[in-house]
Amino acid sequence: MSKGMTGPVTASAEKVERWAVHELALPGPAGGNPFADVELRVSYRYRNRVVTVDGFYDGDGVYRARFMPDREGRWEFVTSSSTPELNGHRGELSCVPPGPGNHGPVGVHGAHHFAYADGTRYDCIGTTCYHWTYESQEVQELTLAGLRGSPFDKVRMCLLPTDGMRPERLPFAGTEPGEVDVSRFDPEFFRHLEGRVADLMELGVEADLILFHPYDRGVWGFDRMTPEQDAHFLRYVVARLAAYRNVWWSLSNEYDFNHDKTIADWDRLLQLVQRLDPYQRLRSIHNGTKMYEIFSPYDFGKPWITHQSVQHWDGAEVGAWRSCPKPVVIDEIGYEGNAGRRWGNLTAQELVHRFWQGMTLGGYVGHGESFVDRETRAWISVGGRLYGESSPRLAFLRDFMAGLPRKADGDVDGTRCVLHYLGDRQPASVELELPGDAQYRVELIDTFAMTVEELPGRFSGRCTIPLPQRPYLALRGVR
Amino acid sequence: MSKGMTGPVTASAEKVERWAVHELALPGPAGGNPFADVELRVSYRYRNRVVTVDGFYDGDGVYRARFMPDREGRWEFVTSSSTPELNGHRGELSCVPPGPGNHGPVGVHGAHHFAYADGTRYDCIGTTCYHWTYESQEVQELTLAGLRGSPFDKVRMCLLPTDGMRPERLPFAGTEPGEVDVSRFDPEFFRHLEGRVADLMELGVEADLILFHPYDRGVWGFDRMTPEQDAHFLRYVVARLAAYRNVWWSLSNEYDFNHDKTIADWDRLLQLVQRLDPYQRLRSIHNGTKMYEIFSPYDFGKPWITHQSVQHWDGAEVGAWRSCPKPVVIDEIGYEGNAGRRWGNLTAQELVHRFWQGMTLGGYVGHGESFVDRETRAWISVGGRLYGESSPRLAFLRDFMAGLPRKADGDVDGTRCVLHYLGDRQPASVELELPGDAQYRVELIDTFAMTVEELPGRFSGRCTIPLPQRPYLALRGVR
Repeated sequence: MSKGMTGPVTASAEKVERWAVHELALPGPAGGNPFADVELRVSYRYRNRVVTVDGFYDGDGVYRARFMPDREGRWEFVTSSSTPELNGHRGELSCVPPGPGNHGPVGVHGAHHFAYADGTRYDCIGTTCYHWTYESQEVQELTLAGLRGSPFDKVRMCLLPTDGMRPERLPFAGTEPGEVDVSRFDPEFFRHLEGRVADLMELGVEADLILFHPYDRGVWGFDRMTPEQDAHFLRYVVARLAAYRNVWWSLSNEYDFNHDKTIADWDRLLQLVQRLDPYQRLRSIHNGTKMYEIFSPYDFGKPWITHQSVQHWDGAEVGAWRSCPKPVVIDEIGYEGNAGRRWGNLTAQELVHRFWQGMTLGGYVGHGESFVDRETRAWISVGGRLYGESSPRLAFLRDFMAGLPRKADGDVDGTRCVLHYLGDRQPASVELELPGDAQYRVELIDTFAMTVEELPGRFSGRCTIPLPQRPYLALRGVR
Repeated sequence: MSKGMTGPVTASAEKVERWAVHELALPGPAGGNPFADVELRVSYRYRNRVVTVDGFYDGDGVYRARFMPDREGRWEFVTSSSTPELNGHRGELSCVPPGPGNHGPVGVHGAHHFAYADGTRYDCIGTTCYHWTYESQEVQELTLAGLRGSPFDKVRMCLLPTDGMRPERLPFAGTEPGEVDVSRFDPEFFRHLEGRVADLMELGVEADLILFHPYDRGVWGFDRMTPEQDAHFLRYVVARLAAYRNVWWSLSNEYDFNHDKTIADWDRLLQLVQRLDPYQRLRSIHNGTKMYEIFSPYDFGKPWITHQSVQHWDGAEVGAWRSCPKPVVIDEIGYEGNAGRRWGNLTAQELVHRFWQGMTLGGYVGHGESFVDRETRAWISVGGRLYGESSPRLAFLRDFMAGLPRKADGDVDGTRCVLHYLGDRQPASVELELPGDAQYRVELIDTFAMTVEELPGRFSGRCTIPLPQRPYLALRGVR
């Protein structure tokens, strides 16, 4: 019945890669509401350490639990439940070294950066495809193919549908507005979603899961469930998905557009996820308009927030936000495209410019495309194909940033490398203040043409660098 | 000795164009400090109306007074002075119709616009050449030639030198820092300046005279004179220059960078100019950084301010500033050029974009060029030649704005013409909300390519206009 078990009591040791998913399955009661009535927990023990995970009902009388081992060696587990059939099952697994491309989950590194669990730097060039998993199989495959050829290593994606969607399956039981039973879930919906999360994991792409959003407008009511219903939903989602090492939790998109929830509600829900998640996946909440207003900006300094998931158009503000000692990720800075709304019709030049502004200041920026008149519609909504000119430039930027020398805390090492992005302006020259005790090679980078040209000579101390008169240039001085 | 006089007591009627300058000259005492010791006033009478102007000492024992008649017909004048030689001189002038190109002084029209005294609309496309009158004759001639071929109808220009300049003549007596006598003036400096103001008048260009500025840095001390010295200076300037119909008073550039003067000081000096100036020329003061801060933005609502002379980078803010019922003139919005400072290295595209933003919202915007590596140096500092690509586009914009139907208050007549500037974005289409009771022709304007293309068909009510996918477009719908 289960991987890692040969019978109901003990199991021979299944081999599981470090940071991969171990899954346990047990038969149990199917009557009543098994999503609400039955509890299952599994405690995994490695030496003196015990990690307890919640199981979940997966339909058809089957209960499952998932676990991500983070140490190599022998892990033992035992189930506990007030339901006798599910209680006291034991087994073990053998955690083996990670395979190629498996660097473990991403965590915060230093104050403002990220790294995989194996120490590899995480570049954090994200994109957004809110409802790509709700699309046809064909479009989903296109999305995965598009991501495979792209620089993107994170996708923001929603669990819940918007008001205008009429999907075949929902996270909850039922499909008709007004007839959905939020006390029950649709396991098939989740199995599909998990398959897509696993596909992203294969591609080395993080799944920044958006748990709530305000685009419901009274159709489904998912933005105005009771505190108990919210908690029931989050428990199920965390039980099913937390073991996938590429999962991040984004409690809500544009939380401040939801007028049925208060900051105190978000505090409570974020803390609930913090309590439920055995792995402490990255956790944030994403603003709509209120980043700079006096009222109700969410305080990213709160301890259950791991990074700042910002919506703002101006990459130049990263410096200010870094006063909060958490990574700054501008998940929405505007999208390349031709939509009618102001957030969705940036030129490629402008979007790439905003990326360079934000990233050279030590922040991270997210991509999106919103071409409304193309075959697969807008990438930010449904995935599909990438049509814009920004993504190859972001690949160039990603490689560029990855090549910079870093200090232990992940910041660019200013003693070894001077970086100066010149923006959308066209100065004839720029003054660089280089240390006087060393000679520097200086390279001129055209961020849009994607060229790197070494300037003749060597530079030291205060020096004036002549520039060609055009925008979107950067300078890198290397010792 | 004087135009308009044949003897010391009465004069035969000299002919003076309406809104031109009548000048009277009288011999008087040259001893002591005639700039401070001697007062001369001249009262001009037209029917029951009397306009009294201050005279001024012009050196070499000569006193002058200048007057701009604003009604056609016979004007009589009489001098008054406590100095017997200057007292009681009488004469008359015959004010005749204005010649070609003489539309009179510019005044405020409606809440937010300008018009010449004869009712002609004033377009208000200004530029800046702060110290062009301090340059060599050759460069000054270049500046005038450049203006002649340009769309600009206003120049911002400084009376006082900056810290780094060592000019041959100053407004005050003396030329060496630390040895200037601010109780005396250099008439030759002013004669030259007035000649240039008259040259601008010939070209139909307003002279927006900047009376103080903060770029002194302790060299001349002109930014930190006593209240008496400031008043002495302003009295002399107004006496000499107010009669030129193209003069505007800008009390200070970037007043908030002068830490030796308070808002109360600026209030006093503005009110002094208001009291001294018989013609009530346009009067404002220009901010440095504080347009949007909480402390010390100058309140343009004060009654002695005629228009809002703004520094700000964002033309989209015009709508907000129009809540003050005075014309909005963004005299500094950034300059086209290649300077190292962020205000001086905009691309032509960006500067033209900012103009269209501000002007389609019912404001006015000022031009400047700051190319630092060209033969005649930066236009904003010294004049010389125009090198940029923005000025022909601003000529196009000027013609475009001049062609729009206007309401009585000067605002664009929205019932006859719908205007929509699309900015630096690239939407595939835009929704226009046209009145449903009429058919509209719609033109697509490429503001940078300077093309106007009529879209096929007629439009009415709410309609979607397809657009080519590129930035810097505007739409005009004409009934």
